[in-house]
Amino acid sequence: MGGDLGPSMVVDGAALALSKDSACRFVMFGDETQISRELTRHPDLKAVTVVHHTDVRVSADDRPSQALRRSRDSSMGLAIQSVRDKEADVAVSAGNTGALMAMSKFMLKTMPGIERPAIIGLLPTSRGVGVMLDLGANIECDEDNLVQFAIMGAAFASTILHLERPLVGLLNVGVEELKGNESVRNAAEKLRGMDLPFEFVGFVEGDGVAAGAVDVFVADGFTGNVALKASEGIARFIASLLTDVYRSSLWTRIGFMFVARGMRRLRTKLDPNKYNGGVFLGLNGLVVKSHGSANAAGFASAINVAADMVRDDMIRHIARDLERLGATADSAQHRAVS
Amino acid sequence: MGGDLGPSMVVDGAALALSKDSACRFVMFGDETQISRELTRHPDLKAVTVVHHTDVRVSADDRPSQALRRSRDSSMGLAIQSVRDKEADVAVSAGNTGALMAMSKFMLKTMPGIERPAIIGLLPTSRGVGVMLDLGANIECDEDNLVQFAIMGAAFASTILHLERPLVGLLNVGVEELKGNESVRNAAEKLRGMDLPFEFVGFVEGDGVAAGAVDVFVADGFTGNVALKASEGIARFIASLLTDVYRSSLWTRIGFMFVARGMRRLRTKLDPNKYNGGVFLGLNGLVVKSHGSANAAGFASAINVAADMVRDDMIRHIARDLERLGATADSAQHRAVS
Repeated sequence: MGGDLGPSMVVDGAALALSKDSACRFVMFGDETQISRELTRHPDLKAVTVVHHTDVRVSADDRPSQALRRSRDSSMGLAIQSVRDKEADVAVSAGNTGALMAMSKFMLKTMPGIERPAIIGLLPTSRGVGVMLDLGANIECDEDNLVQFAIMGAAFASTILHLERPLVGLLNVGVEELKGNESVRNAAEKLRGMDLPFEFVGFVEGDGVAAGAVDVFVADGFTGNVALKASEGIARFIASLLTDVYRSSLWTRIGFMFVARGMRRLRTKLDPNKYNGGVFLGLNGLVVKSHGSANAAGFASAINVAADMVRDDMIRHIARDLERLGATADSAQHRAVS
Repeated sequence: MGGDLGPSMVVDGAALALSKDSACRFVMFGDETQISRELTRHPDLKAVTVVHHTDVRVSADDRPSQALRRSRDSSMGLAIQSVRDKEADVAVSAGNTGALMAMSKFMLKTMPGIERPAIIGLLPTSRGVGVMLDLGANIECDEDNLVQFAIMGAAFASTILHLERPLVGLLNVGVEELKGNESVRNAAEKLRGMDLPFEFVGFVEGDGVAAGAVDVFVADGFTGNVALKASEGIARFIASLLTDVYRSSLWTRIGFMFVARGMRRLRTKLDPNKYNGGVFLGLNGLVVKSHGSANAAGFASAINVAADMVRDDMIRHIARDLERLGATADSAQHRAVS
């Protein structure tokens, strides 16, 4: 029931995701009449979908605390419950982010070895696709949070970007060891001392994101959120400037015909729908937040990312890495002591 | 002597700045032989330039602490001294940022009412040009730092963008009052309670920067630095994608001929040289840091911004605002107490 476009977008998105990944099965929570009406347009989807009716919904302006009171019976709450109770493998929602995170934390709890869940997302880079976390779940982060984000982010990149040894960097104001605040400096020192299943390259500056300096960009939720949104903003700004150029005369319209294919490729490369889906990492269950303004193609991307995580059993992947690194860190301490 | 391109770029930049602003007079510090040779190419500039020789220079990799030891005799140190001793109105350097800031703080000291100086810069927005601070001088900032940045940033926007009542916003992860860390929340509350010579609009998200949500974007130096560089990175990335489209075939080259004028306008609008110059605010003297990789046009922009600040007596402007607001804050406290 979430998102600016409501159930019709969600159902269309599910149909599109199913056409790309026929193994998907759906459980939909919300107004049964509305959902069933939308489903009649997609018989293939309808055949693999169960609808659970509820009248209660979390609205876009509900505070997390208000939303929590509707955990038991709202469409959002029921979707997360279905993950907790193993009826579903992953929940995908286009609803209120704060409410979704609060309910997910409350119902799924954080994994052993993780203090705080983080939100991770995909982004276009000149080397292909990168991932960044945290995108806003944690406003202030200490060194251990950042180390845990690095481990979870690398596991996510392995799964979703199919990288054997992802490159991981900490966002900072400079690449020298002495730069930045205490959290990033200490996190870097800890990561350098660990026997990691990924390549920790150290600090990366803001312009390294689009340049694809690494595969996994790690930051506190304040920095990550502002940096990602600033990048989205400038990309949208340039797109609107290009539209102005196109529209300025008959000649420019003719000119753009010659470059139409290239511009389409460029637009595809930067299409926000391709990078839709903020994944909650660090919980005992998978939850994906679709952008509220996503269209069906964007919602389908979020579902397809969700299905890939399920197929690769990403939570086990993270748990395994954490356990191994926990053991390594302990034995390193033992060595240091003995 | 600073910058990747050295004295020839600096001298060419000064000549270009002089051609736009004939009131400028220059004092140049560094290798006299090199500088004089460059000056022979620009007789108009030579006529208004005094050269002070020194062999000592701060290198790009010097730590601030090392650089400080060369305050007395390096070209950078002598330039700042000339501002302190009122021989020059403003110092412009393309050298090592950390060294320039450390020397500037040491020699010029912070203004009364300012705890920490900040770096402010110009950036393109869909409404024209905006300014952002801090761009990296202060990694961690408390609420008072942010309030002081807002006051200084507004004075800078008045001077450089010719705005009577600039719109000022605090960068945050959301626009609601409860969002963000304690520093931004408390800074917003303080600003809301003050009788300001500018319009404080509250919080602005990252995508508000390119959208021109306000004229002055205020952030701690970590967030501001990463957000600005991330934006620069994605702009450069899109520019390279456009170049790829242009180069992909004869047809695309022909197509771009039709849109050449529009694309030139777009490139001019986003040209990093136009926005070159990180201004140090909050010191008893004006210092401008040009990007190390700036060309002569970029260095000239930095000089022209510097001259505008001198002409508008910006330090007095800031001092006056601080004094008035200090008085206002005090009387508000008195009212609250009485």
